[in-house]
Amino acid sequence: MPLLLTDADVAARLDAAAAVAAMRDALVAAHEGRLIAPPRASAVLEGGRLVMTAGHLADEWYGFRSYDTFGHADGEQLVVLHDARDGRIRAIAVGEEIGSRRTGALGGAAVDLLARPDATTIGVIGSGRQAWTQLWAAAAVRPVRGVRVFSRSAARRSAFATRVSAELGIPATAVDSAAEAVRGQDVVIVATTSERPVLAAADLAPGAHVNLVGFKQRGRAEFGLDLLDRAALIATDSPAQAGAYEPPLICPTRDLRSLGAVAAGVAPGRGSVEELTVFLSVGLAGTEVFLLDRVAALQNVA
Amino acid sequence: MPLLLTDADVAARLDAAAAVAAMRDALVAAHEGRLIAPPRASAVLEGGRLVMTAGHLADEWYGFRSYDTFGHADGEQLVVLHDARDGRIRAIAVGEEIGSRRTGALGGAAVDLLARPDATTIGVIGSGRQAWTQLWAAAAVRPVRGVRVFSRSAARRSAFATRVSAELGIPATAVDSAAEAVRGQDVVIVATTSERPVLAAADLAPGAHVNLVGFKQRGRAEFGLDLLDRAALIATDSPAQAGAYEPPLICPTRDLRSLGAVAAGVAPGRGSVEELTVFLSVGLAGTEVFLLDRVAALQNVA
Repeated sequence: MPLLLTDADVAARLDAAAAVAAMRDALVAAHEGRLIAPPRASAVLEGGRLVMTAGHLADEWYGFRSYDTFGHADGEQLVVLHDARDGRIRAIAVGEEIGSRRTGALGGAAVDLLARPDATTIGVIGSGRQAWTQLWAAAAVRPVRGVRVFSRSAARRSAFATRVSAELGIPATAVDSAAEAVRGQDVVIVATTSERPVLAAADLAPGAHVNLVGFKQRGRAEFGLDLLDRAALIATDSPAQAGAYEPPLICPTRDLRSLGAVAAGVAPGRGSVEELTVFLSVGLAGTEVFLLDRVAALQNVA
Repeated sequence: MPLLLTDADVAARLDAAAAVAAMRDALVAAHEGRLIAPPRASAVLEGGRLVMTAGHLADEWYGFRSYDTFGHADGEQLVVLHDARDGRIRAIAVGEEIGSRRTGALGGAAVDLLARPDATTIGVIGSGRQAWTQLWAAAAVRPVRGVRVFSRSAARRSAFATRVSAELGIPATAVDSAAEAVRGQDVVIVATTSERPVLAAADLAPGAHVNLVGFKQRGRAEFGLDLLDRAALIATDSPAQAGAYEPPLICPTRDLRSLGAVAAGVAPGRGSVEELTVFLSVGLAGTEVFLLDRVAALQNVA
């Protein structure tokens, strides 16, 4: 009988430091060719698709995430982990937590690898699930002492700030504009559903690091070329996936550095404390199964 | 929390009559266009593939079966059922039983629709899991009073006969040749892994009905054209899937009758008690999810 994990189980088992460590290992494994993640496969149903993204860590496990495009508010995803030795199913996770925490933890790995070592402040634009898991992971890799958050809904950004204080124990303030949220902050997280730029590069402090989680395509991006023009380093968790975007990625993929190569120590990270660094999060495939493998080995602590 | 069913749970909940009724309904739903089953989708891993076959019954449910091609003896499949109204996962089945019982029950539906109403004897070639579920389902649609079984292994065919007597309460005999197994029998089940014909049409009684479960392609088939030439009716559970075979199906698809059309009452079945009828089982896609939907509504009875 496989282990069946709900969102509550995942939340109870997985702390941010373990999640970030897992995603650093996944980035290195992908860079070294040990983590195999083929293009997504999908089946067309009536009014939507079922999509499978698979992953395989040679000799250890294989599996997939499945999700659909029907757009149900409470629709559930699945992540399935097979043991590579005998093909048996070791664990199944139902819900959203594995998916959103792995994205957050990839962002946490980017902050760990690219932000200034002395970073202590974070500005957040967005107040949804992705914004939360990005901050949750980032706070595990730097001693954060202050957070400022902006999103369009005053009620939601206020609730987000309250949650940051309560769950992460970090002083947090909801502010009235994106500029106010990012100005002077060492790390900036942008996690919105906007198809138009929501921040100006001019508002960023020298030496800032920026995680970009939302749309990042030509004609549909939550940031503008002003940000990329100012960046000394633009990294992504999957240059291959970024190169397959349609519409295309907002910048040429030759400008991208592999975060996995940085994690593996074979490509440089930040060059100086004054540089602006940027992480384009695309969601390296296979990492949901990678994370489930780690979560399955942990015990519930709640 | 979704319902998680193991092979033991499926065996305890599902009787053959319910399984055959479900597959008759599925055949009609597919014929009427209500059961949507797109081509399989797959992701290429190292040394094998992960495959997803999806199904969607409009307004009721959608889901998929996943399996892989690594060839592990104890590898586990998954069948997943989403509620179409809210996208939540209602049930997950882990293992082989849903898959093999749905194939058996499609065969049972074929026997019910095509065999002589007064059929009482069954000849079986093969003694594996597929042979078993075919017989399990066929025995639910006719008052079977005798079974003869042949397979290459004397030990396995003997164990099969013993199991038939013990679990189905039907007198069963293991015999020394395929000809002896099928001669004079009203219903014949062929469920082997052979790539060469294992029975001769000349050995079949007038009015017999034959279920063919194994290979059925040009140059690779467990039966020969002598059988199809003698048949008055050749039915299949999915003309579309049969037409997509590679290598191609052993006979032109124009010769095939849709079993769903027969089940829906819009195409004729057997014309006389003397005719030979044949069912080419291809495994109508989407039926695993269809069956899981029914099983999920049942209680464990064991």
